[in-house]
Amino acid sequence: MARPKNDNFLRALLRETTDYTPLWLMRQAGRYLPEYCETRKRAGSFLSLCKSPSLACEVTLQPLARYNLDAAILFSDILTVPDAMGLGLYFAEGEGPKFERPLREEWAIRDLTAPDPYDHLRYVMDAVVEIRRALGNSVPLIGFSGSPFTLACYMVEGGGSDDFRTVKTMLYSRPDLLHHILGVTADAVAAYLNAQIECGAQAVQIFDTWGGALSHAAYEEFSLAYMQRVIASLKKTHDGERIPCIVFTKGGGQWLEKIAASGCDAIGLDWTTDLGAARRRVNDQVALQGNFDPIALFASPEAVAKEATRILDCFGAGNTGHVFNLGHGINQHTPPENVSVLVETVHNYRRK
Amino acid sequence: MARPKNDNFLRALLRETTDYTPLWLMRQAGRYLPEYCETRKRAGSFLSLCKSPSLACEVTLQPLARYNLDAAILFSDILTVPDAMGLGLYFAEGEGPKFERPLREEWAIRDLTAPDPYDHLRYVMDAVVEIRRALGNSVPLIGFSGSPFTLACYMVEGGGSDDFRTVKTMLYSRPDLLHHILGVTADAVAAYLNAQIECGAQAVQIFDTWGGALSHAAYEEFSLAYMQRVIASLKKTHDGERIPCIVFTKGGGQWLEKIAASGCDAIGLDWTTDLGAARRRVNDQVALQGNFDPIALFASPEAVAKEATRILDCFGAGNTGHVFNLGHGINQHTPPENVSVLVETVHNYRRK
Repeated sequence: MARPKNDNFLRALLRETTDYTPLWLMRQAGRYLPEYCETRKRAGSFLSLCKSPSLACEVTLQPLARYNLDAAILFSDILTVPDAMGLGLYFAEGEGPKFERPLREEWAIRDLTAPDPYDHLRYVMDAVVEIRRALGNSVPLIGFSGSPFTLACYMVEGGGSDDFRTVKTMLYSRPDLLHHILGVTADAVAAYLNAQIECGAQAVQIFDTWGGALSHAAYEEFSLAYMQRVIASLKKTHDGERIPCIVFTKGGGQWLEKIAASGCDAIGLDWTTDLGAARRRVNDQVALQGNFDPIALFASPEAVAKEATRILDCFGAGNTGHVFNLGHGINQHTPPENVSVLVETVHNYRRK
Repeated sequence: MARPKNDNFLRALLRETTDYTPLWLMRQAGRYLPEYCETRKRAGSFLSLCKSPSLACEVTLQPLARYNLDAAILFSDILTVPDAMGLGLYFAEGEGPKFERPLREEWAIRDLTAPDPYDHLRYVMDAVVEIRRALGNSVPLIGFSGSPFTLACYMVEGGGSDDFRTVKTMLYSRPDLLHHILGVTADAVAAYLNAQIECGAQAVQIFDTWGGALSHAAYEEFSLAYMQRVIASLKKTHDGERIPCIVFTKGGGQWLEKIAASGCDAIGLDWTTDLGAARRRVNDQVALQGNFDPIALFASPEAVAKEATRILDCFGAGNTGHVFNLGHGINQHTPPENVSVLVETVHNYRRK
């Protein structure tokens, strides 16, 4: 199987020369797009949308129809994995994700097992196959998973949290229990990502949304170590092509050298990190992805273009090793027309 | 006027030798203490508590009666300054602080003036005088203010915010307006802190709670530059004693070298920063304060002691330049008995 016609995204990740700086946007298929809201309404709920391969495929393609993006990303939710582990994911209206059976009791923790992705997460694999078929040979498809620690946060807290009090209390008082959860979850994540790769994902990203809430020492022990374990188990090639892996720890800017040594091909950065300084710190050993503040998309079109140019300047010379992205998921209230300005600015920058 | 009998806190900030590692806790007078809740109930509301010098004095002293802390910190709220600027601070039940008149219109921004602290913030100055009298010669009193940027966030948003959409839209689209707000606010903060120093505050801390939400470039331009302006205007001595200044940017771990060059005497660190690495980065040119994860206080007493020891080990050798603290304010649900364990552990560490 050959690379897609537009393989700038894959080439940037593998630090091969690109025609221009490629970009995609975290949460690019989402509520800021009216067409997404319509499909979601049709699906009935967010979870039915995730669980229907054809609707997931439909929304995955929507941002690509509107914008000249350089990659598609599987539409799904990071919490499908703990759901498949039997925790009972549900979304209470206006409240975010919740689990019916949060992981609190020692016996439940000891009972935890990694699900077979082809069985309990079949709908995700079906979506990957359908999206690849629909994309044809245009742009690559990114598969993804939450990091073991980020998933454990939701599993132990039973939903979102401001302060992670329950999972951190476990971390400090019963590290053995948290290590057990993380070990099983890392195996689940590795199997899940490998199945996505087998079904056609051409790159994968690990979303470590909450690793940045940890102390420096705890980050290495409880988040990075398990991402490293996942990466070590990942298929490095499929159908003769390298499958690059991106690690994104929100708030992880202090730990770039350690993340770069995890075995990943690229590091996702939030907007608090200076992209040029990051590049020097990782010494061009890995590619960098980021790092436009998603809230800057609320500014005037001129300001959006100026801020995008600042970030591209910041990365510096060389037509490789940078995938432009936001520093976090796009906000649901973003004006869609400002996304066009962003895409144009980024694509025209190095072509000049 | 001589230094207080226990001046370990001041000595650590000025990098003079100390008898042991001194500590205080951000938000040490607060809802985790039953005696605080009682006083607050008596006051009627949080704002009446802040505005009554004798009740503010009472709660300031409460944690010192319970624990062997090395400094007192004025009980007040960072939003007293914008309130004195006429924005109309109020607290809606269970909703956090709000302003009746958020700063959105250009004419209102152009009309903004720095209040005279001895007039509109007289109650704070009275509290400082009363607390100093009550403390006698025991431990030093810390004065404080929010940073200009952090205050501007509340002033423009009209309250707390998850994403700072309004203030960031102004930052990117109308930087001139935000710079005007920040300039006036910096003058207000400098006058406010100088008045606290004149009334008896023996050290000051600038709380930059939201600077870490900015991009690297925006942090320097919109937060750090204005803290620098405040520091440049501060009285460096009072009654013959040096008045040290601490800058605490939550999430500012990537910018330590720049903060160290701001003219401050010490940098407050949240728990995501490695204290030993931070010390090497600032090359012992400033003192460091921090950085115990406040949520680790929910762990077992043994785990609390272990984590405190890890942080003290992390700072390394030398009996100066470290003030132990939390990496953010103490959580309202913290078990008070774990605070005793923390205080004991820290005080006994270097005495060993």
